Amino acid sequence: MKREIFRKVVPLGDALALWRKALAESGIYSPLGSETIDVRESLGRVTAAPVTARISSPFYHASAMDGYAVRFTDTFGASEAAPLRLALGRQAVYVDTGDPLPHDFNAVVMVEDVNLEGEEIEIVAPVTPWENVRTVGEDIVATELIAPEGQKVRPVDMGAMLAGGLTEVSVRKRPKVAVIPTGTEIVEPGTELKRGDIIDFNSTVLGGLILEWGAEFIRMPIVPDDRQMISRAVSQAVNEADMVVTIAGASTGSEDYTEGVIKELGELVLHGVAIRPGKPAMLGVIDGTAVVGLPGYPVAAHTAFSLFARPVVMAMQGLEESSGGFGTVCAKLSRQVHSALGSEEFVRMKLGNVRGSLIATPLGRGAGLMMTLARADGVMRIPAMSEGLGAGAEVEVELLRAQQEVENTIVSIGSHDNAMDLLANSLKKRYPRFSLSSAHVGSMGGLMALKKNEAHIAPTHLLDEETGQYNTPFLRQLIPERKVVLVNLVYRTQGLMVLKGNPKNIKGLVDLKRENITFINRQRGAGTRLLLDKSLKELGISPEEITGYGREEFTHMAVASAVLTGVADTGLGVLSAANALGLDFVPVTKERYDLAIPADLMETEKVEALLDVIRNDKELKESVDSMGGYDVSEMGQLIE
Amino acid sequence: MKREIFRKVVPLGDALALWRKALAESGIYSPLGSETIDVRESLGRVTAAPVTARISSPFYHASAMDGYAVRFTDTFGASEAAPLRLALGRQAVYVDTGDPLPHDFNAVVMVEDVNLEGEEIEIVAPVTPWENVRTVGEDIVATELIAPEGQKVRPVDMGAMLAGGLTEVSVRKRPKVAVIPTGTEIVEPGTELKRGDIIDFNSTVLGGLILEWGAEFIRMPIVPDDRQMISRAVSQAVNEADMVVTIAGASTGSEDYTEGVIKELGELVLHGVAIRPGKPAMLGVIDGTAVVGLPGYPVAAHTAFSLFARPVVMAMQGLEESSGGFGTVCAKLSRQVHSALGSEEFVRMKLGNVRGSLIATPLGRGAGLMMTLARADGVMRIPAMSEGLGAGAEVEVELLRAQQEVENTIVSIGSHDNAMDLLANSLKKRYPRFSLSSAHVGSMGGLMALKKNEAHIAPTHLLDEETGQYNTPFLRQLIPERKVVLVNLVYRTQGLMVLKGNPKNIKGLVDLKRENITFINRQRGAGTRLLLDKSLKELGISPEEITGYGREEFTHMAVASAVLTGVADTGLGVLSAANALGLDFVPVTKERYDLAIPADLMETEKVEALLDVIRNDKELKESVDSMGGYDVSEMGQLIE
Repeated sequence: MKREIFRKVVPLGDALALWRKALAESGIYSPLGSETIDVRESLGRVTAAPVTARISSPFYHASAMDGYAVRFTDTFGASEAAPLRLALGRQAVYVDTGDPLPHDFNAVVMVEDVNLEGEEIEIVAPVTPWENVRTVGEDIVATELIAPEGQKVRPVDMGAMLAGGLTEVSVRKRPKVAVIPTGTEIVEPGTELKRGDIIDFNSTVLGGLILEWGAEFIRMPIVPDDRQMISRAVSQAVNEADMVVTIAGASTGSEDYTEGVIKELGELVLHGVAIRPGKPAMLGVIDGTAVVGLPGYPVAAHTAFSLFARPVVMAMQGLEESSGGFGTVCAKLSRQVHSALGSEEFVRMKLGNVRGSLIATPLGRGAGLMMTLARADGVMRIPAMSEGLGAGAEVEVELLRAQQEVENTIVSIGSHDNAMDLLANSLKKRYPRFSLSSAHVGSMGGLMALKKNEAHIAPTHLLDEETGQYNTPFLRQLIPERKVVLVNLVYRTQGLMVLKGNPKNIKGLVDLKRENITFINRQRGAGTRLLLDKSLKELGISPEEITGYGREEFTHMAVASAVLTGVADTGLGVLSAANALGLDFVPVTKERYDLAIPADLMETEKVEALLDVIRNDKELKESVDSMGGYDVSEMGQLIE
Repeated sequence: MKREIFRKVVPLGDALALWRKALAESGIYSPLGSETIDVRESLGRVTAAPVTARISSPFYHASAMDGYAVRFTDTFGASEAAPLRLALGRQAVYVDTGDPLPHDFNAVVMVEDVNLEGEEIEIVAPVTPWENVRTVGEDIVATELIAPEGQKVRPVDMGAMLAGGLTEVSVRKRPKVAVIPTGTEIVEPGTELKRGDIIDFNSTVLGGLILEWGAEFIRMPIVPDDRQMISRAVSQAVNEADMVVTIAGASTGSEDYTEGVIKELGELVLHGVAIRPGKPAMLGVIDGTAVVGLPGYPVAAHTAFSLFARPVVMAMQGLEESSGGFGTVCAKLSRQVHSALGSEEFVRMKLGNVRGSLIATPLGRGAGLMMTLARADGVMRIPAMSEGLGAGAEVEVELLRAQQEVENTIVSIGSHDNAMDLLANSLKKRYPRFSLSSAHVGSMGGLMALKKNEAHIAPTHLLDEETGQYNTPFLRQLIPERKVVLVNLVYRTQGLMVLKGNPKNIKGLVDLKRENITFINRQRGAGTRLLLDKSLKELGISPEEITGYGREEFTHMAVASAVLTGVADTGLGVLSAANALGLDFVPVTKERYDLAIPADLMETEKVEALLDVIRNDKELKESVDSMGGYDVSEMGQLIE
């Protein structure tokens, strides 16, 4: 049995052109009809016609001051030397600010410039015509254009419309986008889970985007992998919505059903686009409704949806296709990125401004990694005909957050510890402006990142075999050209994580030699790896004696997870990671965990905020301490 | 009678400090409490606690491919030369992508790499442990931090939370902000208007801002100028809301009531801030609720509200005070701006990118000019101790729209014509990306703006007295250093606008000499002014003979409005303006109205889009024609 897996894959540019053409031919790549709504409810809607003032504002000559309305001709010749008196009622009438001028009056004398003398006022200077008067139309003249067609209504636009005498405004209808999750294994969030279930979170992500793009989100029920049921759901959605989106289950089978359904009910424009992730995307038109079939992996779904649905949703509102985004920035690539020829690749990136230049670091590229989307600051495109980009290359990154947020991010690259998560949280709480973003590449990788100006701080716990000193020798050796300060974060216990009850009775590193023990290692350059290698040497154990020594993970939590799920019997890591997953823990040693910070960055606002939190936030100290296995007594102290 | 108008006016910095201190002492300059809501409804809310994953994702080892689950040890030694056979069921189990791996299996062979032979599969290569398997926690490890406290929830965050097994999330309560419009003259939008009425549009503008800032908007009914009624309304609002905002009527009287009410019910922090506009603002605290008293003029209210309410609304959500804005840009001031000493002044600005540099032009500064807020791209601050800024100065402008929108704006400075409004509308409709922004300074001012790189285009209709030629002689004389192209927009009829029925029987310019006729003029440098002056000269009429010659307006509509409301009996302008306000029109002459465009800008994307609309948009042509008084036969043609 060899399944049919070939698909005609279309380059992205051609796919977008085919899609636009198909939609335009069906008359759906253009603004929807209009509806008339209350101006006060029009915030964020898009005007469907030019909005012009019905009345002027002000619509009568109004006093701009508290004072006396007069005729300017009556004030000729008034001076300090020869004050003039005007009769109240006939020649001068009291008006508050905003009061209409009495008929035939054409100026106002401020109350401060008047002496009231019985039934008369005395003035000592003449006024010019219309002085202190807001004449009709000073702000808005009737028939004046307040907003052109196609403008997104802002608070001030609503104000100008009401001031111009309008109570209703014609706005474009909101596109309705229906989302159908498909797949027999897909379950609603909150369902009691069994192995094989996949929680539908894709439709919530898409729904959020749909709302942010200004459209209405219709969530259809989950449909199992059944051709007829999918067909029925799509038919129903096509009746209700301007765009229908299906999300395939994880298996290729469910995609095939969707393709069949689109062909049966309407026109399949294409199936398969030369993009990564998102290749299995399909596009179609059914009864004048745009249909987008998305793959089930979250990053693939997000990528294809943004590329193909967003321009249509915007066009349906008559808005610019790329409007509402955060724009693009130029950044320097912190490391090499490979890419397969033939597909346009979309890589999620972390960004940070270090010493005035924006540094972009690629995040994990798996199509299934939802968290990389949550962590990303932007997306970099690698053209189909490129095999990748070298470290240091200038690249363009499409922002996924406001640039200001990116600028206010402290970039930490280096070792991973759960205390860093708690620190990130405390920083955000005390200084909402700043964020701490951590990339986990091990202690050595962190110091290299500092050297290359890619990070503001590097958490590090590197034990020097010869001197038995932590970190300092490595700084001297790796970054001799720059003064780098060490600030202690914690001392922590490293040990072997094992299943609850320690079923294989592991007592220490010597047990790793046992044939029935599979180990899970940390990557080269990790402080924990260095610690292991030094300890093994001392014990006279060679790596070849250890099963699993070659399999590497990048974080303590990943090692803990490997132990919990039986991928390995044990791995070296910190107590907090073991505790988090309910593992038992065999202590091996205690080590120092510092933050390495270039001296010239110590007085930047960002780093000062971070140090303030590390040194003075009692709550942080307590929460690190309560994880177990930590000594926080020197938290924030400079290492001399 | 001399009213008490003195007020202790506090500098802005001190006012903000006093305000923060007073609120902090009442415990209301900090995040509100939390509430637990469905993750799927958390878009845009702010997390009230660190969000950590409840389960791993995937939470079981899942096949990453369609294929056969195997034990990797069973595949040792397989090769093309020596294929291995594995028994279905016992050694190999078919799995679809996403299926859980059967217990004890630890790798997947892709279906493409397998030959099915009866009850066995044949493989030709070994697999490594966990190959083609998404191991538990590959995306999210249980207990991992998904979002720190204080993060605004985005679509991808909701996705990560659901994937991490969460269905509910603790978010900060939304601040409730109640707005009370006060003033006996204030009426609801849609009320049948009588002289003296002022439509309440301020509360809608504030409400829009409140929603944009992430808070809830409670609109209280309008309260007349009655101390007791205001007191009752404020008390009620204080019970319901976290912040109460009063908007004074136009008269100082109503402000005084509010001050009294705050003093009676709580603490008045201050009344009067050294800012323009917005000076009469008052701040107070009643029963742990922040109270902001705003002046009634819309720009003053908007300015003071943004300065004093926004940081509090943000702090109540634990967000950065300035978050959610569009940031600031540096720009070059296009003309001198004066400022009074002693007040920090906030000037609304138009921005435009001309030849790569951002140009800022001040808009009208009256506190009552709502439309200047609608037109503004940003706000420039002039410090209290500055008397103003010179043309060409580098200034910082706080953006009121996204910078991208500003970059995509075509800046037109010069003559005013209603056809320009229609053009702006057609451009937005055909090219949603671009906007046309017009400043009206007259033809001559427009050409000077072109010369100084402040504008992309200048609408102009300057008649040369000597040659009788339009525009060309002026370009040669004023901008000899640069090639500027002329593109015809329209030919139009200029004439005298008079009240319906022409009650003063005006037949032509000679009537302006009559004693009972008051004229309203256009400003120096306006093409219409030049036309008038040339015509008067030909008729041998001197300006001194004309009453009102010295009073100037800047647009045709303003002249029409002056005639309609009796400010003047007549003024020179275009038929469309007269028609718009129902005036009669005495034709004087027909003139050419061109767009002057520097040759080097003709091929920029923006200008090409504009020219496309001018030349090819039939709808635009028809709508200009239907205004009357226009000849559109040469619209879009190059003037040789």
